[in-house]
Amino acid sequence: MGEEDVRLTHLDGAGRVHMVDVSGKEPSVRVAVARGQVTMSRRTLDLVRQAALPKGDVLAVARVAGIMAAKEASRLIPLCHPLPLDHVQVDLHLGEDPSPRVLIQATVRTRAPTGAEMEALTAVMGAALAVYDMCKGVDRGMVIGEVRLVRKEGGRSGRWEREGEEPWPCSDE
Amino acid sequence: MGEEDVRLTHLDGAGRVHMVDVSGKEPSVRVAVARGQVTMSRRTLDLVRQAALPKGDVLAVARVAGIMAAKEASRLIPLCHPLPLDHVQVDLHLGEDPSPRVLIQATVRTRAPTGAEMEALTAVMGAALAVYDMCKGVDRGMVIGEVRLVRKEGGRSGRWEREGEEPWPCSDE
Amino acid sequence: MGEEDVRLTHLDGAGRVHMVDVSGKEPSVRVAVARGQVTMSRRTLDLVRQAALPKGDVLAVARVAGIMAAKEASRLIPLCHPLPLDHVQVDLHLGEDPSPRVLIQATVRTRAPTGAEMEALTAVMGAALAVYDMCKGVDRGMVIGEVRLVRKEGGRSGRWEREGEEPWPCSDE
Amino acid sequence: MGEEDVRLTHLDGAGRVHMVDVSGKEPSVRVAVARGQVTMSRRTLDLVRQAALPKGDVLAVARVAGIMAAKEASRLIPLCHPLPLDHVQVDLHLGEDPSPRVLIQATVRTRAPTGAEMEALTAVMGAALAVYDMCKGVDRGMVIGEVRLVRKEGGRSGRWEREGEEPWPCSDE
Amino acid sequence: MGEEDVRLTHLDGAGRVHMVDVSGKEPSVRVAVARGQVTMSRRTLDLVRQAALPKGDVLAVARVAGIMAAKEASRLIPLCHPLPLDHVQVDLHLGEDPSPRVLIQATVRTRAPTGAEMEALTAVMGAALAVYDMCKGVDRGMVIGEVRLVRKEGGRSGRWEREGEEPWPCSDE
Amino acid sequence: MGEEDVRLTHLDGAGRVHMVDVSGKEPSVRVAVARGQVTMSRRTLDLVRQAALPKGDVLAVARVAGIMAAKEASRLIPLCHPLPLDHVQVDLHLGEDPSPRVLIQATVRTRAPTGAEMEALTAVMGAALAVYDMCKGVDRGMVIGEVRLVRKEGGRSGRWEREGEEPWPCSDE
Repeated sequence: MGEEDVRLTHLDGAGRVHMVDVSGKEPSVRVAVARGQVTMSRRTLDLVRQAALPKGDVLAVARVAGIMAAKEASRLIPLCHPLPLDHVQVDLHLGEDPSPRVLIQATVRTRAPTGAEMEALTAVMGAALAVYDMCKGVDRGMVIGEVRLVRKEGGRSGRWEREGEEPWPCSDE
Repeated sequence: MGEEDVRLTHLDGAGRVHMVDVSGKEPSVRVAVARGQVTMSRRTLDLVRQAALPKGDVLAVARVAGIMAAKEASRLIPLCHPLPLDHVQVDLHLGEDPSPRVLIQATVRTRAPTGAEMEALTAVMGAALAVYDMCKGVDRGMVIGEVRLVRKEGGRSGRWEREGEEPWPCSDE
Repeated sequence: MGEEDVRLTHLDGAGRVHMVDVSGKEPSVRVAVARGQVTMSRRTLDLVRQAALPKGDVLAVARVAGIMAAKEASRLIPLCHPLPLDHVQVDLHLGEDPSPRVLIQATVRTRAPTGAEMEALTAVMGAALAVYDMCKGVDRGMVIGEVRLVRKEGGRSGRWEREGEEPWPCSDE
Repeated sequence: MGEEDVRLTHLDGAGRVHMVDVSGKEPSVRVAVARGQVTMSRRTLDLVRQAALPKGDVLAVARVAGIMAAKEASRLIPLCHPLPLDHVQVDLHLGEDPSPRVLIQATVRTRAPTGAEMEALTAVMGAALAVYDMCKGVDRGMVIGEVRLVRKEGGRSGRWEREGEEPWPCSDE
Repeated sequence: MGEEDVRLTHLDGAGRVHMVDVSGKEPSVRVAVARGQVTMSRRTLDLVRQAALPKGDVLAVARVAGIMAAKEASRLIPLCHPLPLDHVQVDLHLGEDPSPRVLIQATVRTRAPTGAEMEALTAVMGAALAVYDMCKGVDRGMVIGEVRLVRKEGGRSGRWEREGEEPWPCSDE
Repeated sequence: MGEEDVRLTHLDGAGRVHMVDVSGKEPSVRVAVARGQVTMSRRTLDLVRQAALPKGDVLAVARVAGIMAAKEASRLIPLCHPLPLDHVQVDLHLGEDPSPRVLIQATVRTRAPTGAEMEALTAVMGAALAVYDMCKGVDRGMVIGEVRLVRKEGGRSGRWEREGEEPWPCSDE
């Protein structure tokens, strides 16, 4: 069975939470990739794309928010191990199909005894919240969604890939 | 026009970000309610519901994670104002229709010159990430989604409610 | 009845935790004083008092640790409200009776809708942990104890004082 | 001599504090166990035990607070090294003898060049403060005490155990 | 005498530090403006200005770093009060005279019983460190300097302006 | 070419920031030394030196602020990797030539795949801000300046030393 395919490693026999003991695992290179999106009105997306919302700053702020959120994962998520991070990258893509939205992808790489899935997901969340914050003045109806793991590598359970994921668009942004 | 219906308050004329000046606004009571969900396999939801995942601890941890995340909103979101918080509540509901999932609702109340929408959304995120973290050993395919504002009160723009929202289920959990 | 003499304000009717709603309370001046101690061997106390442990630095570090810990209270304690702090003072006294120890007293003052008891207790904790950390190389057997609220003022329940407390020694340190 | 049996490693020759240089030590597995308690009135303990204070949530919150506090140790304690943590467990036990109280035990495991004693003590403190916070509405007279190291393993000084400690009660809670 | 023209408000009569008591001061609008610079080689400045260092991202990251640092001031500076912040703005200007450098100006506005000078200075520091970090791969010799308060308004001591300051260049960046 | 002599490692081909991937580098011992100063009026320096500003506390607070700031570097600087720190030392020296000032030197040692330059610079900044904060009541005109790297060791680019640096004064303080 896979590395984490035991039942609810965060609970002991009596159902009490703890931070899982990983002291028996050697550190190894691990990668996690997560994705998500912020759907919005076409008008908002146009503002993001055009002059009213100069791309440079808004997307740079979202990228930075995602990278910094990855570093906070273990402080936000109660039972998450603090990990050294070798690499964090946050990509953003403005899409229209099937609906206007900002697509977000985070890639995190670590050398650690446990994986960086939570860091990648937290990076996506951080970037999504920053996009929401900057656009909420013109669009309260945005929805953050489809936040999911799309790939992981390394560790005892090895590589895992979510089925049906499209390749990330070449022309980022 | 509504309080935040100016264009992109976070950008100055040249498109550079700043933390919006709210010094001209008096503090007033404001409420924000946000929702979201973690969809998962039926087996995982059953584990959450039944003995293998004693409800007390797992849901309590998610609630605490949401409440603590609300307090971190201004540190995670680059241009978000630090606010005093008068009340934070995180509700969780295990649902099956249309798919197995943990529903999350966060209510935040503040007396401040700006609203608590970001705090409510961050609370939902924090709770969702905690649920994901505790269940990821049995289900890597979970998806965090539909994170959205459902209501806000107070401030110059007054009350706003998202259309089409169901009332929150009475029997929480 | 006193301000907080309701039952377990942190739990709703179904026993679920939340951050208590204080939006109905007006901010008012509140003071909280807490105390505690680190008991240690006579040799360690002598080191603290004499040249081997120059008082200036060690006690200054403990004071700073206590003051900074007070500012972190709401981030450490899950259901604690973030408060503005008007004043934090940490006093240390080296005592020998009935046993060698460093006495700690923290005074916190705020203008807020809820009291600063947790901030004062956290300040004592922070100072005590710093003393322990700096002396642990010579004394693993130290014990942090008697951490307690000794007085509070302000709020609906008004002044409260623990019975039997001695006045704080005039000659601090 | 033992690993930390030099005098006041946190002070240089002139009595000035620094963060001790551990670059000459190889990382190795280390364990630290600390304990403490919150004494309270019988009525408060009964509330904690019975329906008025549903065990699930209150004790889960205290456990989470302790685990998260362990991750904050190096940020709270000025001269404490930041450590990776392989495992954190916080156990709670409701006791009545010799007085009503919540007993707390924290176990921390790391692979690092220095020990995790401060992390274990901080975890006990975090859990104790959370218990205090949740019960303070019904009992201002609680006392946090007997916070102490009970065992450490690993490092140059090897195993150390405090004398006279009872085994931890089997039936946790 | 001015508001802060007492001697060393952070020390009591015996020379021990504390967080100054401001509970006797009413909150009022206060503004602080600070400046600083990062001097660098002409080649580095050219990289910052030209394509190799697309202005958008690098300067946006520095701006965000400055804004976020302002929010951290009270956690970095031991005796600094936590303040609500109504507005934070960080301006950057690329200058060549008398030497190649990035000029930084931070403006912070609060309604609080004490001023926001430390927040403005910390914002300048945060932006300067971010510039340094992003350029250090091509220029280890950069120097962060001239970090200073240039203006403050509000509070008992009223307006203060540093003599000899130039107006901030109109064409920011 | 040296370890970091690639162009702007923090930007990808399209000029977008990311946290540089260091997963191909083995951890090794690295040292970074940075310096800076706070210039002030002679009267302020005299206060720092004499009884009005008991050296113990003020300088101890600045040292602690510097050490704690080093631990926060990766949270303040958006693209900075979180590093384990083996040693942090902050030295202060009161100088008068060519002008009254507090000199600051920070030494940081780590075993990591990337250097600790940012941690050393952040430590200098933290100490400088603390000095400023404690003296600002008597001297608003202080200037923090000359914050610079003076030496680094380890990593692929090996040792680097800034030219023209004086040895640190033997009699610290």
